[in-house]
Amino acid sequence: MSAEEQESLTHAAVVDAALRIADAVEQTPVLRSDVLDERCGVKLHFKCEHLQAIGAFKLRGASHALASLDMAQASAGVCTHSSGNHGAALALAARQRGIACTVVVPEGANAQKLANIQQYGARIVRCAPTQAAREQTLSEIQAQTGAIPIPPYDHPDIICGQGTAALELLQQQPDLEGLLVPVGGGGLLAGSLLAADGHCPVWGCEPAGADDTARSLAAGKRLTDLQPQTICDGLRAVVGRLNFSVIQQHGAQILTVDDEAVIEAMQLLWRHLKQTVEPSAAITLAAVLRHPEQFRGRRLGLILSGGNVDLEQLPWS
Amino acid sequence: MSAEEQESLTHAAVVDAALRIADAVEQTPVLRSDVLDERCGVKLHFKCEHLQAIGAFKLRGASHALASLDMAQASAGVCTHSSGNHGAALALAARQRGIACTVVVPEGANAQKLANIQQYGARIVRCAPTQAAREQTLSEIQAQTGAIPIPPYDHPDIICGQGTAALELLQQQPDLEGLLVPVGGGGLLAGSLLAADGHCPVWGCEPAGADDTARSLAAGKRLTDLQPQTICDGLRAVVGRLNFSVIQQHGAQILTVDDEAVIEAMQLLWRHLKQTVEPSAAITLAAVLRHPEQFRGRRLGLILSGGNVDLEQLPWS
Repeated sequence: MSAEEQESLTHAAVVDAALRIADAVEQTPVLRSDVLDERCGVKLHFKCEHLQAIGAFKLRGASHALASLDMAQASAGVCTHSSGNHGAALALAARQRGIACTVVVPEGANAQKLANIQQYGARIVRCAPTQAAREQTLSEIQAQTGAIPIPPYDHPDIICGQGTAALELLQQQPDLEGLLVPVGGGGLLAGSLLAADGHCPVWGCEPAGADDTARSLAAGKRLTDLQPQTICDGLRAVVGRLNFSVIQQHGAQILTVDDEAVIEAMQLLWRHLKQTVEPSAAITLAAVLRHPEQFRGRRLGLILSGGNVDLEQLPWS
Repeated sequence: MSAEEQESLTHAAVVDAALRIADAVEQTPVLRSDVLDERCGVKLHFKCEHLQAIGAFKLRGASHALASLDMAQASAGVCTHSSGNHGAALALAARQRGIACTVVVPEGANAQKLANIQQYGARIVRCAPTQAAREQTLSEIQAQTGAIPIPPYDHPDIICGQGTAALELLQQQPDLEGLLVPVGGGGLLAGSLLAADGHCPVWGCEPAGADDTARSLAAGKRLTDLQPQTICDGLRAVVGRLNFSVIQQHGAQILTVDDEAVIEAMQLLWRHLKQTVEPSAAITLAAVLRHPEQFRGRRLGLILSGGNVDLEQLPWS
């Protein structure tokens, strides 16, 4: 990454982001469950980002990106492509700022997430479910409207905004001995690494069927040949360029987790924590279930990243 | 009711109960949702008793009943009959006090609730799913063991214990203009009426298919001919004798709600509040959905009474 990018990706930048978005986001609670602790042999602290407005942490990054635009930049509105929570986050952040927002949504997106984007008043443009169609459609919208594209994860403002969730968790529970966060595009993981800043280890939890970050770290370079096969619909993206650089520099460890463990973890969270979280959020507990020896007896923070589930299409029904 | 019973059922007794059980129960959070407020045209404050240990408010009454037993009384243990949350509550409260607990559970009970009772180490005795079989089996256990029976709702200690949920909610959110609580045996409603003590109106929400409390109030006497037909498995009981007296004296209004509205409310709570609540808890939001004109614009407190759902048997799947 460039020297300028490097300078914008620091612990101080995450602290600054937290101040800038303080009025736009909720301080979400941390929940615990004795039953889950006994079951896993660890002390689990769940950071409830699924209780954020829009039902996901992504409001943090989107709010931060918009806070960084001046009036002239913001006046033509913003746009993005998203199959889910980033689109809803940008829609709500744009509505809060009073500017227009267009979201390119591929066919086949989760119905609950699509309804979420619509609910906040964004204009929706559908496209084929390929990366090429998403980018082509977004380019056309930019050309037509002059709207500024806000990427879902590969951007310093987004990374630092997402990092505020881990920062807040470490303020609420300073004695944590480790953080576990989901990895898709890597915004939350990169931001969490900056937020933790060596205070405790941070593990990225990645679906075995979308394990490009793990493979990229092993290969020493970012691999982009991903063909995702996982029920974690929020984690099907290729890790971003900046995101991968941060993850690599901080020596993060990636734990890959099969979908079966994700479904088991999701049921445990619904049953015992009574929280309706999506598969992409449950992957952190799934990683603890699959790697018990690694975590035994530790005080862990797990970011429950979102709760936008299609109740008519539950993975166990 | 007797003069002694009357004296034990007061606002002061609920305040006293709150002090006695403070170490045994959680202070549960109050959650809000802008989306649900817009949808319903009211300001909704959800008291999250499904986040209580055992996943239901019933721990309050059970803990209070056990706190009232002296060592000699408690030494032979306690017993009850329950198809659900009261059994789990008594099991945990007994474990916390270090005494034995036997729960008579009728065949056909919700699997999640049965697992909950087992999990806290109670001895379980199965019986036929009739009131007569439950009472007969419990009598045999009392005769064999000398255990003290702790009824699920028709007892001053239970009523005052359950009332601490509403008391806590009114402390957390003093500006409420109304409370809505579910009615089955009437422990939560009677306790909430004592807790509110005229500070704001309290509505009981009862399944249309188990509307004995509404019919009893209309008839001016307690009717016990109930043949419950409702998915609200926590609300299938006949209103208790003491419970009905308190409800009648305080002039509580009962709103009856069909199961279709309960399912809609349950989905709204899972989808937007991200809380895994059971049908018996969702009935309060269902009552708001079915009676919008009655509540428009008000600040309401709704007690989410429990979250013990069988995830394999969801009412919409």
